[in-house]
Formats: sequence, C-alpha cells, structure tokens
Amino acid sequence: MEVEKESNEYFSSYEDLEVHRLMLEDEPRTLAYQNAILSNEAYFKDKVVMDVGCGTGILSIFCAQAGAKKVYAVEASDLANLAKEVVKENGFDEIIEVIHSRVEDVILPDNMKVDAIISEWMGFYLLHEGMLDSVIAARDKFLKDGGEMFPESATIYIAPCSIPSLYDKWDNLYGVSMSTFAKCLRQNKSNKPEILNVKPADLLGPQVALCWINLKENKMSDLDKYSIQHVVGARKSGFYQGLCVWFECKFPGQLNNGENGAVVLDTSPESPATHWKQTVIVLPHSYEVEEGDPIAFQLDMTRDAVNRRRYNLQVTILDPETVDHPLPCTCHMTRCILIKIFMEQQAEKELETHAKYEGNVIEDEDIDEV
Amino acid sequence: MEVEKESNEYFSSYEDLEVHRLMLEDEPRTLAYQNAILSNEAYFKDKVVMDVGCGTGILSIFCAQAGAKKVYAVEASDLANLAKEVVKENGFDEIIEVIHSRVEDVILPDNMKVDAIISEWMGFYLLHEGMLDSVIAARDKFLKDGGEMFPESATIYIAPCSIPSLYDKWDNLYGVSMSTFAKCLRQNKSNKPEILNVKPADLLGPQVALCWINLKENKMSDLDKYSIQHVVGARKSGFYQGLCVWFECKFPGQLNNGENGAVVLDTSPESPATHWKQTVIVLPHSYEVEEGDPIAFQLDMTRDAVNRRRYNLQVTILDPETVDHPLPCTCHMTRCILIKIFMEQQAEKELETHAKYEGNVIEDEDIDEV
Repeated sequence: MEVEKESNEYFSSYEDLEVHRLMLEDEPRTLAYQNAILSNEAYFKDKVVMDVGCGTGILSIFCAQAGAKKVYAVEASDLANLAKEVVKENGFDEIIEVIHSRVEDVILPDNMKVDAIISEWMGFYLLHEGMLDSVIAARDKFLKDGGEMFPESATIYIAPCSIPSLYDKWDNLYGVSMSTFAKCLRQNKSNKPEILNVKPADLLGPQVALCWINLKENKMSDLDKYSIQHVVGARKSGFYQGLCVWFECKFPGQLNNGENGAVVLDTSPESPATHWKQTVIVLPHSYEVEEGDPIAFQLDMTRDAVNRRRYNLQVTILDPETVDHPLPCTCHMTRCILIKIFMEQQAEKELETHAKYEGNVIEDEDIDEV
Repeated sequence: MEVEKESNEYFSSYEDLEVHRLMLEDEPRTLAYQNAILSNEAYFKDKVVMDVGCGTGILSIFCAQAGAKKVYAVEASDLANLAKEVVKENGFDEIIEVIHSRVEDVILPDNMKVDAIISEWMGFYLLHEGMLDSVIAARDKFLKDGGEMFPESATIYIAPCSIPSLYDKWDNLYGVSMSTFAKCLRQNKSNKPEILNVKPADLLGPQVALCWINLKENKMSDLDKYSIQHVVGARKSGFYQGLCVWFECKFPGQLNNGENGAVVLDTSPESPATHWKQTVIVLPHSYEVEEGDPIAFQLDMTRDAVNRRRYNLQVTILDPETVDHPLPCTCHMTRCILIKIFMEQQAEKELETHAKYEGNVIEDEDIDEV
C-alpha cells in the first residue's frame, strides 16, 4: 500500500502516460533506438551523453547499458519525476542524472560538452508537434565538435496514393448510401490530415524525398519551409486521392567497427506499422489514373506563424505539361519515354566500356554509378 | 466543385464525424440493428417509428427499408443537417423526417404517438455518457401503449479478470525494468477505467449480471444506482487484477412470426470486438488465486451527482468468509462444496422422479427446469 502511495508523488497526467505507453509499446521505434545504441557499445563506452526529452528514461537506460559514463536525461514535463524512479529501479542512478528542465535552460557543470545527443523528437510526418528545435538548440549548446547525433539524419518521403477507407465502402454501407457522410469526412481532412496505416498496394507511384535533414548540421531556420515540385508516372491504374507522407531516420552506424550497418527507423507503408502510421493529405477530389499517367504536384510544408511547432501542408495539383519532369521520368509522356530510352542506351554503352576495361566482372556498384 | 462547397453547410465537427465513422464501421453494432429491424419487416410495415439520437440517420433508413410509414429521426446536434442529406440521398425524404432538436423538446403533429422507438444510446459499460435518460423520456412522451422498444432490454455483466497489458511485460521491457511506470499507469486507472479488448482467456470466473434494464418499464430513477455483492470461484489459477464489465442488448424478436429469434448485441470478451470493447475496473493490487478460490466483491455503479451522464464505479474487495455465496457456488470453500454436492444429489433424485413419470425421455428442457 505504501509503495502505491509513494508513486503518487511522481504522478503524471493520464494523457502523458498513455502517450508514453503507446511509444514504449511501439516496437519498431523502441527497438531501432535500442539497436542503434547497443550495436555501438564500443562507441558508447565511457562517453558522456545527453538525452533530450527523455520521457520515461528508457533511451538513457539503453545508453547506460551500452557503457556510457554519464547520461544527462533532460525532461521538461513532470514525467521527469517518474524517469528518476525508473532510472533508480534499473540501478543507474549513479550514471544517469535526470534534469527536470527545458533543455534550453540547462547548464551542465563546468559548461561541460557531451559526446553524443540522443533524442526521440519525431512527430507525425516527422515535424508535427515535434521538438526538433530543442534538439538543435541542445546540439549547438552542448555537443562537442565531432560529437554524434542519434539519429543523425531524417528524410521525409511522399508518394501519391489511393485512400479506399475514405471512398470505397461509403456508397453502399449495409445497403445504405452514405456518400454525403463520406464527403463530409473528406472535407474535414482539409483541416487535419488523415493519420492511418496506408497499405503498400494503395501507393500509386514511387516515393520522392521532400527533404533530408542533417541533424549534425541543419539550423533551426532550415526547418521553416520545405517545398517540392514533382512528377511521377502512376505505377498502376487506380484512383489518385491523396499524398502519403512518411519519414525515415538514420542512426550513426559502424562507429567502431565494420560489422554493423546503420540502423534505420523506417515508417513507410512497406515497413512494420509504428504509432506514427502514415500521414495522408487528402485531395479535394478523386482522380482516375491509368498506368503511366503523369501525376504532377507541388507540396509546401511551412511552419505555422503562430504555433511554431505545427506546419501547414499544402498540395497544389500541377499540369504535367508545364512542369519539369525528373530524369528519367516513369510517366508515359512521349518526351519522357524517349529520354528514358536514350538514357538506358547510354547506360548500356557505358556498361560495355566498363566491361572492356575491367573484364567481365560487373558489380552492382558499377551499375549504381552509371 | 459545387457539390463539395454545398456540403459545407452541414459541416459537423471533426470529432463528431470521426465518432460516427467509428460507429458505422462497427459491424457487430450496426448489423445487430439492421438484423433486428429487417428480420421484423412484417412488424415495421406501415408503422410510425421514432429514432432517438439518429446521428447520420442510418437506423432510420433501416426502418424505412423495412416498410415503416413514417420515421421521426430526432437529433440534437448539427449532425441533423447531415442526416437530412443522407436520408435524401437514399430517397426516403418523404418517409423520414429529421427533427433537429433535443427529443425532450419535440412536439409531434396532433400529439401523435409512435409504434416503436429505436435508439442506439449505449456508452462504455452501457451507461457512460449514454443517453438512456432521453430514450426513457421519449418513451414516456411518445410511445403508444404496447409499443416496442429497439432494443427492449439491456444487461450489464461483470467477471473478475487478469489484465496482462498492465502487468506482465513491464518488469522487463526491452531489457529495462519499467515497474514504476506500470504502477503509475495502474494508479491512473483509479480515475478512469481501462477500455480494452479483454481476451476470453483472461476472464478468471463466470460472469454475473449487475443489472437488467427493461427499456419498456424502467424509470429514469431506476438508473441512479446499481449494486451487487457476489462471490465466484476462480475457474483457473491466475492473477485477479480487475473486474471486467460489458453489456448485452436484446431486441424484440418474433414480433410477427416464429422464424426469427431475438437479435442480441453482445459486447462480451467472447463475442466479436465492438468499439465499446470492455471496461475494466483496475484493482489497486494484483491477487494470485488458485482454481476454486473464492473471489468476493461488491460493485457499486452510482450516477455522478454533478454530471448525471456519468457514473462512479466503485469496487470493494470483500472477505469471502463474511459474504453470502450464491447457491450453488463454484468456489472451493467446504460449505459451498457440500451445498453443491447436496444440490446435485437433489437434482439427480428429481430427474429420477421425472424419468419414472415420463418414461425414459429426458430432454434438455427437463434438466433446465430442475
């Protein structure tokens, strides 16, 4: 009874706890961090680490398990009190120091710098309600020259998609037509994008990167706006109804040996589902496309002027005739087909030259270089 | 484009629409209503029906499909505007009249009475945030003598259970001990019961009915408090960690012929999952029990004095020695074992008497009657 009473002291809000429960139960997420840290044990040994927004403290504990000398676990919310207990319960209270503070206000003893910063700062479509600004501030203030960021980079991908859950069944639901209802549902999405697990089969075209964020170098102002104009050829016939957005984070790998490749946390429709799912920007209409049809769009992701932790996502449907297509382009417009054939012929010629110079050994690497 | 603009007129809040989407996508729920109505087509033919809290209007449409002469579809929220469009889209605007009003304020032409009231008023554990009061008010004001209620009765069941999701994994989550976190999670549940899908295997004892609500007869004040004191024998060894609460609704069946039995909407752990899931009242501690151990508890479900749409659920753990056990009781206390043996012997004797009087034909029915 007494133990239960005590834990009231570090009582956090119901919502906070449920969010952290969701994150802890998200295996692809938590295992990516665990792998990234424990596969770099030799790197972490005797290092000083900062965990920005430590939450329940689990990432700090992974660092301590990997041999870190000191971990500063910074948490602004009341969850810091809970993190202290979790750290104690795991016997790391000598190594992990939980600091209940905004990271911007933290002062380390002797203005010490840290070897690595670890943080799980990602929100929906990477940047929504995320705390990347705080991570960048922490990096500028606390990271040693040559220090490591976990993760070290993040990429946002987009691809055109169908959204059957907002279209298909509503015309005949239990023998009733609910089209008006579905129309309202879709209209609502113009205010709030849809968060759902997109089936790989509902992707209509290849993905394209909207941005690549280098956690070691990008400045806060770099995050203010990302834009892309793009054309893809539909890879099958179907209904183009939205843009699917997801992200991927890469952790530093092979810091000490060549055995482990980089660990990647991938939230694409093709990867195991995470609590981030995918974000879909719903178009105002459904467009029927045939295989090879060019799909041209512009996506602007702009920080909200008022709430700096939010972004406005705006899709503009473009005319494929007036937009630059990528080289090569997968669409079936005559220009793109000709360019594609030309480029393939060039590639073949170069391969022949390679083969001439290097014998018959043509490795994958060579093909990639072409 | 114009159609999309128009539908802004009956724009409902994002949350409202998502709640109704969840309910429409809940097949056991919606199919139960559809079956209850369409299996009673002969009854509904030319009847006047009221749908209390019609939402998107789908239940009213089922009634119209079943041949109702007139349906008054009452909806207090702005969703009424959407319901009007859905009704129109299904060609029933001559039969279904959507009334945008609280049902308490509705006046029907010539103070007309209706033959049947249909409503999907159920909340978590049946009564949470439900609108049963409004349904009862509508019944008293609008239902003809001998009219039908869809559903006509509802039962709340409880059973002791384990809650592995709040206990098991947290001692070793990815190699980290998160016991303090789990303790906080469980503590939070003292303020807000856990809504989750309980696995049948996690039920530790047989269910018992907390209450049976007769929609045709119960008064509003009958809903103010339900209490039960009960003892069950654990049907297997395990950890007693909570009380699982669910409900079942029964619809009028065989109104016109003997072919169709009553339709039941059952939200028990053994039935297909619904959006109500089950509600679990989490105990402050985990109790290890052996098969046959008596589990004694009292559950009080009391209307909140301030928010009359909410209930306070209070569990009291009782001493099995000082509580009346049911007859027979499945627990392994000597008294109960002896009583059970005695009752079984009596039953056997009665069966023999039956056999003597009625020959050798002993049907299930006879056994049930004993």
